[in-house]
Amino acid sequence: MEEQNLTIEGRNAVLEAFRSGKTIDKLFVLDGCMDGPIKTILREAQKGDVIINYVAKERLDQISETGKHQGVIAYAAAYSYATVEDMLEVAREKGEDPFIIFLDNVEDPHNLGAIIRTANLAGAHGVVIPKRRAVGLTATVVKASAGALNYTPVAKVTNLSQTIQALKGEGMWFVCADMDGDTMYQLNLKGPIGVVMGNEGSGVSDLVKKHCDLVARIPMKGDIDSLNVSVATGILAYEVVRQRLQA
Amino acid sequence: MEEQNLTIEGRNAVLEAFRSGKTIDKLFVLDGCMDGPIKTILREAQKGDVIINYVAKERLDQISETGKHQGVIAYAAAYSYATVEDMLEVAREKGEDPFIIFLDNVEDPHNLGAIIRTANLAGAHGVVIPKRRAVGLTATVVKASAGALNYTPVAKVTNLSQTIQALKGEGMWFVCADMDGDTMYQLNLKGPIGVVMGNEGSGVSDLVKKHCDLVARIPMKGDIDSLNVSVATGILAYEVVRQRLQA
Repeated sequence: MEEQNLTIEGRNAVLEAFRSGKTIDKLFVLDGCMDGPIKTILREAQKGDVIINYVAKERLDQISETGKHQGVIAYAAAYSYATVEDMLEVAREKGEDPFIIFLDNVEDPHNLGAIIRTANLAGAHGVVIPKRRAVGLTATVVKASAGALNYTPVAKVTNLSQTIQALKGEGMWFVCADMDGDTMYQLNLKGPIGVVMGNEGSGVSDLVKKHCDLVARIPMKGDIDSLNVSVATGILAYEVVRQRLQA
Repeated sequence: MEEQNLTIEGRNAVLEAFRSGKTIDKLFVLDGCMDGPIKTILREAQKGDVIINYVAKERLDQISETGKHQGVIAYAAAYSYATVEDMLEVAREKGEDPFIIFLDNVEDPHNLGAIIRTANLAGAHGVVIPKRRAVGLTATVVKASAGALNYTPVAKVTNLSQTIQALKGEGMWFVCADMDGDTMYQLNLKGPIGVVMGNEGSGVSDLVKKHCDLVARIPMKGDIDSLNVSVATGILAYEVVRQRLQA
C-alpha cells in the first residue's frame, strides 16, 4: 500500500485523481450542479462505486481546506484498499488458516487504527470494513495503526453480509462478539475464522449477526455496558490466538 | 467519587480549592513570584504533596482559559482519587482475591480512560497510577472511561515500586507485560494479583519490572513493535479473567 493525498479539491484535481486510479473514499458535489465536468466526475465515481454526497455550498465551504473547491471535493484514502481475495492468498502463502477481522460499522478512526494494529500483531490476515457509513483509511487511522497499515491489508466491501456468505461457502467460520452469546472460552475458534465486531454504540447489526455461525460473549463483571471496541477486538482476537497456539 | 471543576485560575480561587479539600493534580506558578498569597498556596500544595511547576508568564498565558490567572493555575482532578487500601477493602467485601491494574506512566488520556473501562468490566478492583509524569483524571479520561470512573476507583501513589513492595508483603503477586517474558498463557495468574502495564513508548521501567514476580509476554506474530497499551491491558487482564473462571 502506498500513501496518498487526503483531500482533493476542484474539478481538474478530482477528475485527475479518478483517472490516475487513486482510491476515492467519498465525493462531495454541490447540490444541483450538473455541468459537463461535474457529470464526467459523477460518471467516474459511479464506475468506482464511490459514495456520492450532494451537499449545499455552505457545507462544501466548511469542508474545503483551500477555499477553492469549484463545487467538488473528494476524500482520497490515505492508503489504497486490498481485496478479501488478497487476504486469503496471504494466508495460503503462509500455510495458515485464514483469520480475518470484520468491522460492522466502526466509526471512530482511533478505534479502526488500533484494530488494524491489533490485527497485525495477532497474526490476522486482514481487516474488512463496509463501504457505507463506516470510517475509511483517514490520516488519523493511519497514525493510530502505528505503522500496521503498511503490512496488514484493509478491504472495503459493499455488503458485509454477502461477503460473509461467500466466505462461508469457501469454508470459513464466523464468530461475532455480542453480550447474548456463549462465553468465548467455551467456543471452538480454531480453523479458518472471521471475527466480526460491531459499531461502538449499537454493536453487530442483526442482519450481519444472523450470518455468523457463533456468537461469543466476553465475560463482563462490571457496572458499565461494554468495552471499547478496539479493546474488545483485542480480547476476542487473542482468544483465537490462544486456541491456535494450543492446536 | 464526585465530579469537580478542571482548571482553577487566580489566587483566591486556587487557595479556596485547596482549603475546600479539592484534589489538585498539578499547580502552575509564575517563576520568581513569591508574595504572600502565592507563598500560602505553595504551603498548601506542599501539604497535599501536589506537583508544583514553576513556569514563565508566556506558559501561564497559554494554559489560561480565562486570561486572568494572576500568576497561578491549578489543575483539579475531574474525580477524586481513592487509595489502594480502598481497593483491597472492596475485594475483601466481595470475598474476591484482589485484582488491581498498575500503570507505569501511561501518558495518553484516551488510553487511561479505556483502561479504567476495561478494569471495571474485567472485575478488577481498581487502577493505580503514579503521581509524577503520568496523566491524571482529566475530562478526556472521564469521557473515555464511559462511566467506569463512577465505579472503579483510581489511586495515585508517589512511588509505584514502593507500593508494589508493600502489597507483596500482604500476599499479592505482580505480573508485568513485557516482550521478553514468558507467554502469558503459560503463567499462573490466579490468586491476588497486580497487573503492571508500561508507558506507551518505553514500556514498564526497569525499576518497576524488577519488583514484579512474573513477566508476561503477549504473543505477537506481526511486523510492528507493540499493541496499543489499552488493548494490551485488555488482553492481559482477560487472561487473568479466563484463569479465574477456571478455578
